[in-house]
Amino acid sequence: MSNCIFCRILSGEFSSSVVWENETIFAFLDIHPISEGHTLVIPKRHVELFTELLPEEVAQVAQSGQLIASHLKKSLPECEGVTFSLANGVAAGQEVPHAHLHVIPRRSGDGFGWKLPPGCGQQVPREGLEAVAQKLRSSINRA
Amino acid sequence: MSNCIFCRILSGEFSSSVVWENETIFAFLDIHPISEGHTLVIPKRHVELFTELLPEEVAQVAQSGQLIASHLKKSLPECEGVTFSLANGVAAGQEVPHAHLHVIPRRSGDGFGWKLPPGCGQQVPREGLEAVAQKLRSSINRA
Repeated sequence: MSNCIFCRILSGEFSSSVVWENETIFAFLDIHPISEGHTLVIPKRHVELFTELLPEEVAQVAQSGQLIASHLKKSLPECEGVTFSLANGVAAGQEVPHAHLHVIPRRSGDGFGWKLPPGCGQQVPREGLEAVAQKLRSSINRA
Repeated sequence: MSNCIFCRILSGEFSSSVVWENETIFAFLDIHPISEGHTLVIPKRHVELFTELLPEEVAQVAQSGQLIASHLKKSLPECEGVTFSLANGVAAGQEVPHAHLHVIPRRSGDGFGWKLPPGCGQQVPREGLEAVAQKLRSSINRA
């Protein structure tokens, strides 16, 4: 995809700092890192949404993320934990239309976290949860 | 693990609203959802950190998350996108010591997002990124 910034990085048109790659996956440092070592893991194939990836690509994105998280912890003294985050779709905050997993080094008290809309995170009664779970189970069972 | 809340859910001691399961994976609704349909995907084996999971477990956590995200979008009219989030370690905000992936339905303007520490997200010069990437590549190549 000639107008996709990640595809232009993959083609070598734009430079990047490579962390890891294999036939399927490319991992490189975010140029606007939330913390030192903030890495993006992408499939080499241009696919907009994570939900559109093939099962093998999904597995490799996650396994590459795990690999990188382990090495972030080994090689960066400030890295005490790792946050994985992936936005599927514009409504979820996806800014580049090529599926990508954020692997973000964390330390205690770094001030990074979720910004929650007011009122969310309240406990939901079991019958409310069951109604939603039933919809999901029905959808999955029909597939 | 008798004192792990997720293991007590798995054993049936605590109730849950099940979304999906197979031999390896269990997915159920978060009782304090950020949005309707907020699902937790866990390995059935008690493992504290995502970085400690076996490759097959990592693959199945991610593939189950993908499956659920697709069905959240199909079955919940308000779901326009999905955020995947996973905290690896207490420093990353992990609250339950059993690896779990959050699958969170999103809609445009829902007010959910990342809370960033002041000053982060600035562009880093290429030589700074390269120094970090070199550390990571060395660590990965030594493994």
